[in-house]
Amino acid sequence: MTHALDLDQIYAFAVGLGRRAGELLLARAEQRISGTAEAVLEKDSAVDIVTQTDEDVESFIRNAIQAQYPTHKFLGEETYAKGQSRDYLIDDQPTWVVDPLDGTVNYTHLFPMFCVSIGFVVEQKPVIGVIYSPFQDQLFSSCTGRGAWLNERRRLPLLQKPSIPPMPAHAPSQCVFACEWGKDRRDHPDGNLYRKIDSFLNMAVERGGREGKGGMVHGVRSLGSATLDLAYTAMGSFDIWWEGGCWEWDVCAGIAILLEAGGLVTTANPPEDINAPIEDFKLGSRLYLAIRPAGPSSTETARESQERTVREVWRRVRNLTYERPGC
Amino acid sequence: MTHALDLDQIYAFAVGLGRRAGELLLARAEQRISGTAEAVLEKDSAVDIVTQTDEDVESFIRNAIQAQYPTHKFLGEETYAKGQSRDYLIDDQPTWVVDPLDGTVNYTHLFPMFCVSIGFVVEQKPVIGVIYSPFQDQLFSSCTGRGAWLNERRRLPLLQKPSIPPMPAHAPSQCVFACEWGKDRRDHPDGNLYRKIDSFLNMAVERGGREGKGGMVHGVRSLGSATLDLAYTAMGSFDIWWEGGCWEWDVCAGIAILLEAGGLVTTANPPEDINAPIEDFKLGSRLYLAIRPAGPSSTETARESQERTVREVWRRVRNLTYERPGC
Repeated sequence: MTHALDLDQIYAFAVGLGRRAGELLLARAEQRISGTAEAVLEKDSAVDIVTQTDEDVESFIRNAIQAQYPTHKFLGEETYAKGQSRDYLIDDQPTWVVDPLDGTVNYTHLFPMFCVSIGFVVEQKPVIGVIYSPFQDQLFSSCTGRGAWLNERRRLPLLQKPSIPPMPAHAPSQCVFACEWGKDRRDHPDGNLYRKIDSFLNMAVERGGREGKGGMVHGVRSLGSATLDLAYTAMGSFDIWWEGGCWEWDVCAGIAILLEAGGLVTTANPPEDINAPIEDFKLGSRLYLAIRPAGPSSTETARESQERTVREVWRRVRNLTYERPGC
Repeated sequence: MTHALDLDQIYAFAVGLGRRAGELLLARAEQRISGTAEAVLEKDSAVDIVTQTDEDVESFIRNAIQAQYPTHKFLGEETYAKGQSRDYLIDDQPTWVVDPLDGTVNYTHLFPMFCVSIGFVVEQKPVIGVIYSPFQDQLFSSCTGRGAWLNERRRLPLLQKPSIPPMPAHAPSQCVFACEWGKDRRDHPDGNLYRKIDSFLNMAVERGGREGKGGMVHGVRSLGSATLDLAYTAMGSFDIWWEGGCWEWDVCAGIAILLEAGGLVTTANPPEDINAPIEDFKLGSRLYLAIRPAGPSSTETARESQERTVREVWRRVRNLTYERPGC
């Protein structure tokens, strides 16, 4: 199927579309700032304004895609959320996977870490990714074989001269670890929040602590946007991102960009045998572990150092329980 | 003392200085990206490059200040860290309080959340603040009586038309809560890391959970920069920032900006009687709780809604144990 698609043309279209959609997000934010957004005059209406923006930007993106590529499929967060099914809907057809607004809470509070996320999937593989964060004017983009980029001029990862740094010898030590608290806030020791916090703590505590699980990461970061977490992992700014609970539109573009930059993506949940060959991520699995692009060292290939890091993370995290039919 | 100072002139000088210092930070980062930073060629030298940058930028700022205002005192992170004393050194003299590079771990990893922070204190009060985050090109600035600004054109907080939103009725619910994991990673239930995590969890868990302490905040954010946490609180993007362990140069400029924007700053640690009048922050206390600028509601003044939020935070957090002589 891929050979019949003009990926260069589709990529250029996606980049332009991402920019325009992000500008629309920003224009709506500016209306709130200038006090000209009608609904803002009503009490507690920020959430409604955001919902409306989410829907409008998704329509804008969907319409543009349907006009340009009427045979392509479209999967958007808003459209999906209104449907009855929670099935994974992506098949082998060329499919656009879109989150019109990732970082919704940030957008509501006007914290700049929000973005539009446009992924293009062919034969189940994310081949194009465009993420645009308009308040920061940061555009991340990639197309298979054409590199991953920040603002179309800085190649990702940022550090690659003279060579991309290998993963640290004692990873997760020296690593920046990105993670999110999520929406599941049940006060239950077996709920996802407690599973996450146990895992975050294991990653953060001094080496030797937590019955040998202490990872002493260099820093723990939570931005409130899965999409931007992935973008900064592609940049090399974050070394490790571990998450459960997000959906394919939250991660599709980010995974495309991270893979093109040389990153590794697998599942958040440790397999029974963590020394078995590391399986590829499943786009609809809602469970993700991402490692930044790495270079080789004198003792390891790049991939070996990434896989070592994956296993060191798996040794320190608890299984998360986000499920969906058929996954 | 203040009446003898030309604050307008000093403010303009501080803004220019912040920009130039930030550009120097960015230029050094660009050298790492382009592979032209000499030391980058050596193994594991990123940390040394950063230390050197930190020192060079502090010297640049100190020299500029001493040339322009030879009678003013200067307190910089690097100079202080090399001294023997851990005393609080700020007296009633006009004093510049400077962190040449806040978010050092971010800078090392080239995550954009790093900045230069320049505060100016007169009679113990932060009267001017300049924070410049050059990768994001975000300049936050304020001077007493002249407002707080983003990039010298957007007044802070961002949302103030038709009026600044009051704190949510059930705060910390609906609030974005900013916090940092810090460097104290001891695996001890009474160490600061566990005190912090218990507090974060109380803030995050569903209402009614954690024996009534569940705060169900809208989101938990950790950026790795106390200075930028404060800047985003002044912007109104973060509602609450709670932190222990940072130093006066980490917070001086941010507190100046937040106060000028209309925020409230007090101590992180709940007093014995949390219903007693809320005390002002102490710049050298290493313990801070900041609340965003708020507007009045039909039932509360702005200050009342901020103070209510302070007490709701205090009900949910544990005391932190960061100490220094004389505080």
